[in-house]
Amino acid sequence: MQPQAVIFDVFGTCVDWRSGVASVALEFFRARSIEIDPIAFADAWRAQYQPAMAVIRAGDRGYVDLDVLHRENLDRVLTANGLADQLGEDDRNRLNHAWEKLPAWPDVVPGLTAIRDHAIIAPCSNGSIALMTRLARFAGLPWDCILGAPIARNYKPQPVVYLQSCAALRLDPSEVMMVAAHNDDLAAARKAGLMTGFVARPTEHGEAQTSDLGPAGDWDVVADDFVALADAIFER
Amino acid sequence: MQPQAVIFDVFGTCVDWRSGVASVALEFFRARSIEIDPIAFADAWRAQYQPAMAVIRAGDRGYVDLDVLHRENLDRVLTANGLADQLGEDDRNRLNHAWEKLPAWPDVVPGLTAIRDHAIIAPCSNGSIALMTRLARFAGLPWDCILGAPIARNYKPQPVVYLQSCAALRLDPSEVMMVAAHNDDLAAARKAGLMTGFVARPTEHGEAQTSDLGPAGDWDVVADDFVALADAIFER
Repeated sequence: MQPQAVIFDVFGTCVDWRSGVASVALEFFRARSIEIDPIAFADAWRAQYQPAMAVIRAGDRGYVDLDVLHRENLDRVLTANGLADQLGEDDRNRLNHAWEKLPAWPDVVPGLTAIRDHAIIAPCSNGSIALMTRLARFAGLPWDCILGAPIARNYKPQPVVYLQSCAALRLDPSEVMMVAAHNDDLAAARKAGLMTGFVARPTEHGEAQTSDLGPAGDWDVVADDFVALADAIFER
Repeated sequence: MQPQAVIFDVFGTCVDWRSGVASVALEFFRARSIEIDPIAFADAWRAQYQPAMAVIRAGDRGYVDLDVLHRENLDRVLTANGLADQLGEDDRNRLNHAWEKLPAWPDVVPGLTAIRDHAIIAPCSNGSIALMTRLARFAGLPWDCILGAPIARNYKPQPVVYLQSCAALRLDPSEVMMVAAHNDDLAAARKAGLMTGFVARPTEHGEAQTSDLGPAGDWDVVADDFVALADAIFER
């Protein structure tokens, strides 16, 4: 059965957050004569991502959107790197927009455009509406709407995020396919009743990446890139 | 000051719901050999719109999305027209999709496309995400995201709908312009702190329309159509 909607993980799956954040950080710190290793900076910032969401998933903190978590995580990384005294509030808020300026992997825009001819397409990301909207404008992602964490007010892989994303479209989970480069995301989506599609992003974490190099489950579709994914889903 | 985002009323302002619903209804009832006046049918269905939302605005009923209200309103109209026995559940659900198949006024797509070069654009409608998404695909509306009632879980003109729409973009209301063909919508948006833009749709309710033929307030921008609106807002 072909999906009525295809929803996507974004960070890592659609866009290269590591190169993107590093590139913004490089320019930002260079302009302020602060020396950093931009890739190490991006990795350190991203390393705070899961722990920050875990507190909310566990119910120990009410939902706040990812922009708030990114900003708190930035403060932590700056402090850890001895840079706390060098950046004020305005600078920190400005740097926080780095997550809105991430390049799409080269196959993403043509692949999404092809899929959109057959089904509704939307992000099912942990990013906020503000972040997903600006990122889509930057990277040219032709979403029909924004789903995911901000709709459910919780974070993946909590089942409510997948379920509320389907419900927002008035679709049954069985009519929706989740696409990700991360096996744990797909495992959670399948458990919630969605179809699953895997596309590996073997350099998301750099050349030495060891995780998610291939499918770890019998996902409904496995493809080399988003264009092949469109062909596989809709048997073009 | 130019807006960072421009948000739009949809039914009446962007799309011609009356002709659209009438056209779907005409075909639908003809295929079932049921005689109706399609325009009167569209008007009767729409007449149930405000009363249905009023109950939720008043807090006498929890939020349900507009698709649910449209479906309940349809039942009411069918009964009032002696058609209750002639349509089953499946047919009623099928007809309820009429609201997803409404034509844009001719200036809307070029106008939105022009505005989108300068600002985020989104619907701030009482329609659900499901409805707004499918309508956008049908009518070619190039929204960046979907805001409005489903984000706030309440109905315009409650202030929370405008305020939550701005907050979802992490913008202050003063950075956002609400555009509508309805003076009461703009009055509520202004009260919430947004900029306001008026475009008249003098045939929304047909040739005999008497309401909203012109601006009833000193709105920030008044334009003849969406292309002129783009020019006026961004001084192109």
